[in-house]
Amino acid sequence: MTKAAGNPVGAACPLPLPHHERIVMGHGSGGRLTADLVDRLFKPLLANPVLMEGDDSAVIGTDQLGEAGELALSTDAHVVRPLFFPGGDIGRLSICGTVNDLAMVGARPMWIAAAFIIEEGFATADLDRIVRSAAAAAQEAGVTVVAGDTKVAERGAVDGLYVTTTGVGLVPAGRPSARAARVRGGDAVLVSGPIGDHGIAVLAARGDLALRTAIESDTAPLNGLVEKLYGSGVKVHALRDPTRGGVAASLNELAASSGVCVVVEEPRIPVRREVAAACEILGFDPLHIANEGRLVAFVPETDAETALAALRSEPYGAEACRIGRVEAGPAGRVLLETGIGGTRIVDMPSGELLPRIC
Amino acid sequence: MTKAAGNPVGAACPLPLPHHERIVMGHGSGGRLTADLVDRLFKPLLANPVLMEGDDSAVIGTDQLGEAGELALSTDAHVVRPLFFPGGDIGRLSICGTVNDLAMVGARPMWIAAAFIIEEGFATADLDRIVRSAAAAAQEAGVTVVAGDTKVAERGAVDGLYVTTTGVGLVPAGRPSARAARVRGGDAVLVSGPIGDHGIAVLAARGDLALRTAIESDTAPLNGLVEKLYGSGVKVHALRDPTRGGVAASLNELAASSGVCVVVEEPRIPVRREVAAACEILGFDPLHIANEGRLVAFVPETDAETALAALRSEPYGAEACRIGRVEAGPAGRVLLETGIGGTRIVDMPSGELLPRIC
Repeated sequence: MTKAAGNPVGAACPLPLPHHERIVMGHGSGGRLTADLVDRLFKPLLANPVLMEGDDSAVIGTDQLGEAGELALSTDAHVVRPLFFPGGDIGRLSICGTVNDLAMVGARPMWIAAAFIIEEGFATADLDRIVRSAAAAAQEAGVTVVAGDTKVAERGAVDGLYVTTTGVGLVPAGRPSARAARVRGGDAVLVSGPIGDHGIAVLAARGDLALRTAIESDTAPLNGLVEKLYGSGVKVHALRDPTRGGVAASLNELAASSGVCVVVEEPRIPVRREVAAACEILGFDPLHIANEGRLVAFVPETDAETALAALRSEPYGAEACRIGRVEAGPAGRVLLETGIGGTRIVDMPSGELLPRIC
Repeated sequence: MTKAAGNPVGAACPLPLPHHERIVMGHGSGGRLTADLVDRLFKPLLANPVLMEGDDSAVIGTDQLGEAGELALSTDAHVVRPLFFPGGDIGRLSICGTVNDLAMVGARPMWIAAAFIIEEGFATADLDRIVRSAAAAAQEAGVTVVAGDTKVAERGAVDGLYVTTTGVGLVPAGRPSARAARVRGGDAVLVSGPIGDHGIAVLAARGDLALRTAIESDTAPLNGLVEKLYGSGVKVHALRDPTRGGVAASLNELAASSGVCVVVEEPRIPVRREVAAACEILGFDPLHIANEGRLVAFVPETDAETALAALRSEPYGAEACRIGRVEAGPAGRVLLETGIGGTRIVDMPSGELLPRIC
């Protein structure tokens, strides 16, 4: 059951392609079958005036830019395996992933383009379920899917389905976009909730690790949370959503680009008991596990309490807490203060980790 | 040899990942190897200030929107097989495909986001060649690749490499965007050059049809051609780049959305002799064959000669000609007047045609 399953958008909609229970190569030909697929499945589920126009590009009036100060653009290919997992699916994931990347620079996500690469033989009912879930996530995030593309590759040339989503967002005029370059020594480091849920949920759903857990993926759009932060008057310096490579990768990237040192206090890192247990068994560090509905915020020390209160006022930030601080140096370094008084370097994860986690 | 091979951008650049002649799963992990791939291969080849910032989204100042009247957004997944073909490769194709979709609504293509899904074991040298070719095409088209993503899937879960490109373009203020809805009975229908080159070149490159031909793909950015059209004062009603499904699919889509009838005169359709011969042998209709560097323009009859002159003044439009006209009805119909005085319906292509042609 995906989170989107209860969405009323098309609860009574019949299977959209009655004569094709499975996708055939012709659905990618650009001819009549492609038109059928787009007109009967994608357009009804993602319905909006811009998408309906059917020109080669979506066209958006600049009056819709409002008081924008900056434009944000982000793209993500989603190759998650399996396509359906507890707490989400590739449809919800692909919308949230792009919405969150836009929100992480302080932009309001506005328009999404979605490109599907589908394996010949893919069940039309599964495609319907995935697009429905993407539509529900878009509705939740307040974004419009204005452009799309559908390609089909032969059996064995895609593992089911891949979705690349690209988003355009607007940073309101007067709002400084959140950027690595704005992070300063003395900043507080906050996280919006427990880490590692997505990675462990997906891993468990693969079923090849004999890992049983009740953990659900945290996949969620975080733009509401970010608006709350700015709305509370916090001077947001930088934001990151720690997906692939987890919090460790996000902090290392940020430390490197901003030339600061990030110090994390291990006992403060929120990790659900089941996630910690799974990591223990599998030999993973929760800091390396992917999240799809968590953010790390870098804010001035003086704004830390206001920021935490703002995050906690939203459902997706209810378990927000402070995990560390920024120091001026050593530049580019991430350090972990352990519970027993030691300090160790948190490296950029290397090697394979968890392939196809998003 | 791709068109990009002679490009000087990085002719002396050594292989970028000396310890990895092949892509490994870790290059998609989000950790150190991903950073290596992005920093050593993608960033140097696509170098520009926005891409270099390294935040979760590219951020573009709205001052760069200039006098834009509308924003255009388009996305395309590219799954062409083989990756290298006479006249181009997936790198050049993916940039041109998106540039052209933007240009087809009258927008000036500005910013591109590119997402790569790479098969484990893919040769790094081939990836380098593809990204280099994309960079050269972007330079030719005057667009900037400001955002990107790289995922790796296991051997057998991708057929080499897929690239999804998404573009943002600006329609200058005062320029009516080119839209199906603007087409009128009485419009002239022009094509910018011979049709079918791309489809036949790719098909021949597959080598499984014992088809030998000297035909090269027409893959090219058409935004210069479109600017020339507008610059000449032509009232452009609509533009289409006839890719998958060929001219037949483009005309049918346009006739359906604009509720007009398009009449094409068969003897006027430009088809190279080799393409015609290949179509004859293979039982294809040149109207169904994909193009990646051709456009169809719908302009008022009174502007037809000016439009042709404008198209012919550019290298990519040197062989432009008029192929037909628009009539008020029967709505949604495409008709072909044959050389011997007959008329037949040109249907939307159905079935498989040429899979993975773009």
